[in-house]
Order: sequence, then C-alpha cells, then structure tokens
Amino acid sequence: MRRLVFFVSDSTGITAETLGNALLSQFDDIDFDKVTLPFVSDRALAQAAVRSIDVSCEVDAPRPVVFSTLSNPDLYDIVCTSRALVLDLFKAFLPRLEEELQMGSTHATGRYHGLVNRPNYEGRIEAIDFALSHDDGASVKHYDRADIILVGVSRSGKTPTCIYLAMQFAIRAANYPLTNDDLEKGGLPRFLDRFVRRLYGLTIDPERLRQIRHNRRPDSRYASLAQCRTEVAEVEALFRSRGIPYLDTSHSSVEEIASRILQDTGLQRRSF
Amino acid sequence: MRRLVFFVSDSTGITAETLGNALLSQFDDIDFDKVTLPFVSDRALAQAAVRSIDVSCEVDAPRPVVFSTLSNPDLYDIVCTSRALVLDLFKAFLPRLEEELQMGSTHATGRYHGLVNRPNYEGRIEAIDFALSHDDGASVKHYDRADIILVGVSRSGKTPTCIYLAMQFAIRAANYPLTNDDLEKGGLPRFLDRFVRRLYGLTIDPERLRQIRHNRRPDSRYASLAQCRTEVAEVEALFRSRGIPYLDTSHSSVEEIASRILQDTGLQRRSF
Repeated sequence: MRRLVFFVSDSTGITAETLGNALLSQFDDIDFDKVTLPFVSDRALAQAAVRSIDVSCEVDAPRPVVFSTLSNPDLYDIVCTSRALVLDLFKAFLPRLEEELQMGSTHATGRYHGLVNRPNYEGRIEAIDFALSHDDGASVKHYDRADIILVGVSRSGKTPTCIYLAMQFAIRAANYPLTNDDLEKGGLPRFLDRFVRRLYGLTIDPERLRQIRHNRRPDSRYASLAQCRTEVAEVEALFRSRGIPYLDTSHSSVEEIASRILQDTGLQRRSF
Repeated sequence: MRRLVFFVSDSTGITAETLGNALLSQFDDIDFDKVTLPFVSDRALAQAAVRSIDVSCEVDAPRPVVFSTLSNPDLYDIVCTSRALVLDLFKAFLPRLEEELQMGSTHATGRYHGLVNRPNYEGRIEAIDFALSHDDGASVKHYDRADIILVGVSRSGKTPTCIYLAMQFAIRAANYPLTNDDLEKGGLPRFLDRFVRRLYGLTIDPERLRQIRHNRRPDSRYASLAQCRTEVAEVEALFRSRGIPYLDTSHSSVEEIASRILQDTGLQRRSF
C-alpha cells in the first residue's frame, strides 16, 4: 500500500515533518511518498500548494494526507480547499492553549525555526564550533570549557553524538578517542584526570564495531573481531574502575544516545 | 508572566519539544520554564512523571502545561491524572489518521527517533562523516561524491549549514571557502569548474560579517569593515557572473538556510 503525504509550512517545514513523521511511524504497512512544501507564506503560495496537492493525486487513488504548520488561519483555510485530509498543528492545539494561557497567539510565521532569539541561536552555533574544534582528541587544552567529554574506542559513535548534542541542545561536547596505546597502559591519559567528572563513556557491541570498522578499513587488524573484543573489554573495565558512566550505542540512534546522556548527567537542554 | 511546561515522551522527547516549542513560540509575553521528561516508557515511570509535575506546581500558581508524545494510551491516561493541562500529539491526531488510513496504529514506542530503518540511519551518519571530512576546503578531490558544495567567504555560515543538511536531511554537503586570494584572481579556483552546477553560494551583510569575524579575531584586518565589504562585493559578483545561485544568511537560522537551499536546488530531503 502506498499513500501520498505532504508537509506544508509557512516556514522551513521541519516541524510539520517532525509531527507527521512521528505519526506515520505508527503505521508499519504503508509506504508513504512524502513531499515537503516549505515557505507557504501568503495566499498565492497557499493556492499554488493546493494545485500541487490536487494535481499529484490520481483519480482512483485515496486522497493525500497533509501535515501542516500554518500559523495564519487564512492560509490554513486555503489549504483545506484541496482534496487532501489536512491535519494542522496550530489548528489542533492553539485554541486550547490560548484559552489556558488566557491570551491570543501572535499568528506570526517563522517564529520557531527563525532567528528570533539571537543569543540562544549564537549559543548553538558556538556549541557546533566547539564540537568541531574538539573532535577526536583535538584541542584538549580547552577541555575546561566543555560541558561534557565523550570517551570511547574509535568508531563507537562519539563524533555524531557530540555534533547532535551541539546542534539540538547547544551543549558543548568534546570527544577523546581511547586508543589501543591508552588502553594497554591500563588507564586514562593523565591529562584527563582533572576532567574525570565531565567524562561520559560510549561502548558498543564488538561484532557491530567490527562491521563499522570493516566498512572503513576492510580486513585490517583494526577491524578484526579479536581487536574489537579486546578494546571493548578494556574500555568497559576502565569505565567501571574509574566510575565513568557509560552507554552502549549499538542499538541506539544519535537522538536516543544524546537524550540518554542528558538524562544520566543532568545536563540541561539549552537550545530553545 | 511565567508558566511551567513539561515535555513528556516515551522516547527521546525531541518530538514533544518540537511540537511544544512551535506552539509556545506563538506566545510572546510569557516566560516558559521548560522541563523534559524523556523515556517515560512504563506505568511506574508515568506515575513518577505525574509526581514530578505535581510537586513542581506551587499552590497558587496556574497549572503546568504538558506536551506529550505517548503512543501507549495507558501511559497517556496516567499522565492525565496530574494537575497539568496535557496536550498529546497521538491523542490529537491518531484517531483521524487511523480512520483515514483504515488501519490501527502500532502504539509502539521509540519508532520515530529510534533505529528502525538502519539503512536510512546509516545514510545520515555517512552524510555527517562526509560533511566533516569535506569541511572548509578539505578533501576537494572527492567532490564528485557531494550532493552540494557550498561556497562563500570565511564565516558566512557554510559549516553549520553543511552539518545541518547532513544531520537533518542526509544530504552530502561539502564546503569551500573563497579566500581573498581566490577573489583577487577574479574567479573560482580552476578545480571547481567541473562542479559548478553543484555549487551554491552563501553571502552575508558586511556589517554582520564584521561582527562575527571581530568575535573571532578582534581588530584584525580580516575583521575590518573595509575588508568584509570588499570580499562580499567580490564574491557576489562572482556568483552572478558564474550563474551560481546564492542566499543571504544574515537574518536566517541554519534551519531556514538549509530549507531554502533544498527548495532552490530541488535536492530531495532524505532522512526519514
């Protein structure tokens, strides 16, 4: 079964996609063909969106589903003239929220993903700069500025997690790879001692690590199962002996890893 | 005016935050104190969430607002026993969607931000690796693998945009900084000629560029207004003469820049 889905927004479309995809992920047996129509910010663009929706819809096919975030009710009304079922975030929730807060909403467009709060936004951009310049053991002398320092063996998921923590939550996250050398010496590099309370470990199933490393350097010693097993066993022993909290990343997305880390450490989400 | 807000989720909480923050951004005059309660995935955790919500609520204060994404109706019912107003994504939309699609939903947790579709997820992680290894003019010899190559003067927003394109949309984005040297020679570096159709330019208001560069290297020639004006004028002339589409990033967030680029170029959003 296939079904056509549109995400319609007066801004980036990212909220409409998030809303719609979260809902659609609850339906396993349908293939959804998805189209995003962003920046639908005036009546002419809304009418153009209606035409796009209607022409894409074959005569015998079931009507499309539209997930929309249109803060202007006039634009919502126009999109509702299409053949699609329209499910709108603001229409569904704003009336109850206005009543609860005893206040009318602004109906302004581009509020959420726009540059409304410049200091908050710059905090995010600085966090991204920080993650990039402190990736993979770089700039270790500035670790005093890190909110958190992820440690783990090579390819255990540190880099994308740091970038996600920065992008989504404005957390300044560094990462340091624990090498075979470090592990054979039986401990953390000395300079990490004074940051031990900011350390958070990532670990991974050795078989999964072998696959990831094999894709990067096929048939290397680095990618051998024996090497992966040894490194993982040593790094987990190190985490336990030093009381470093840690997480197995084998079956988790960056979103899940990042959220678990924040929950475990009590670091506050800062972005919005 | 202040108001307490909770984001409650059986998974990461990211969808609940997106939903809630998009709605709250419509109310200018209230300061919202926000708390996320993620991974509320069983009855005991739901009851603990209710206690957290209720104890945080002072006697004379207005009740908190909860934005939730609880795919299990039992957990939703428990959270509704709190003193808060509860607005749930699934409760609001799933019944209409089930009726429309003529199918029951799975009520499974962690579907959306979990590792459900491993190939899609790995495409995103590869795109992040690509953005990092092709940042700031690195690895130019692999540009044939890029979906898009952002060009612009130093600090015009290329790096965070590339990372966002990768993280959110699984787009492989490289970026190349056009230096004073390149611009004085009056053109693109020769090796970019064969990629000209994949180039996309970022530009920026010279005064804004001056501020950003000043924060990085105070009082340098690099950060002087004269230098910023010259570089921006030259780079825009170059974009026009070579027919490279471009965008002014001065007043836009990475979300807006990334969405505009996809809209302009027709590149498909791939992530979900």
